[in-house]
Amino acid sequence: MKLKSFDHLNCSLAQTLSVVGEHWTMLIIRDVFFGFRRFEQFQKSLGIARNVLSDRLKKLIEAGILEKSEGPGHREYRLTEKGLALQPIMIAMTHWGDEFMPHPDGTRIKFIDRKDGKPIKTSGIYAADGRKLKPKEIKAKRGPALSNDNTTSESTSIFDLS
Amino acid sequence: MKLKSFDHLNCSLAQTLSVVGEHWTMLIIRDVFFGFRRFEQFQKSLGIARNVLSDRLKKLIEAGILEKSEGPGHREYRLTEKGLALQPIMIAMTHWGDEFMPHPDGTRIKFIDRKDGKPIKTSGIYAADGRKLKPKEIKAKRGPALSNDNTTSESTSIFDLS
Repeated sequence: MKLKSFDHLNCSLAQTLSVVGEHWTMLIIRDVFFGFRRFEQFQKSLGIARNVLSDRLKKLIEAGILEKSEGPGHREYRLTEKGLALQPIMIAMTHWGDEFMPHPDGTRIKFIDRKDGKPIKTSGIYAADGRKLKPKEIKAKRGPALSNDNTTSESTSIFDLS
Repeated sequence: MKLKSFDHLNCSLAQTLSVVGEHWTMLIIRDVFFGFRRFEQFQKSLGIARNVLSDRLKKLIEAGILEKSEGPGHREYRLTEKGLALQPIMIAMTHWGDEFMPHPDGTRIKFIDRKDGKPIKTSGIYAADGRKLKPKEIKAKRGPALSNDNTTSESTSIFDLS
């Protein structure tokens, strides 16, 4: 299936989804974060069709999120800096799943600070002074790239959650 | 196209993707955050096929992310608490797009604290004491829901980003 692209949307969220929004892509990235490096490991871990896995790995390399190295007898995939920077997205999605689609036995994965073993803060939006902000305490303003753009919903000047 | 489900994966990220991971879904949620309420507004804003939009809205209601109300002559969609809680994911994706897939004219959308107009902190992972953590400073441990589970890559005991 050819998915409709988001090229007509001048939106950073749409840009991000254009490279990590396809079915399976975030789960492949998860596996690389968890230390998997090889095609066969991803395939076994996810139970994904080989042609789909090939396609997704190829696109992640083209997007500069993974890099490929040839190891002894096999190919390895690693996260680039751009790929590592996806971690807040991945953890925010994990925290949301923990809260709203929990497992009856409790937490699946706990993320801790390697230094002291304490749990990291739950994903959230923080003000400059460190206060945790609720959705309705945040306002969105157009930046320079949208000042002459009326094509998207982002041309509204604020979040309107009333 | 029938997408393969993630039901075989005992993973909070996969759970989240099972309700917001389909093509267009996060962009529809974005539009509701920006104050759009009606089918025709989403359709015009995104340029999405009507049958796809109908399907996504139906699934978001079934998942408890949107709720529907019948206004005068039209139906309206609003975010539930579960839907509002998606904001950190949406903003983390927007910040990643801002950084790695920027617009030549600058920022598209700026998120500010409604109280003082200052920009919010860039999405990241924070330690209990407020330090910003880098990807390799975070460790993942199995929680109770995974203690007897060897089916996923999450059965590894740590992030291995070496």
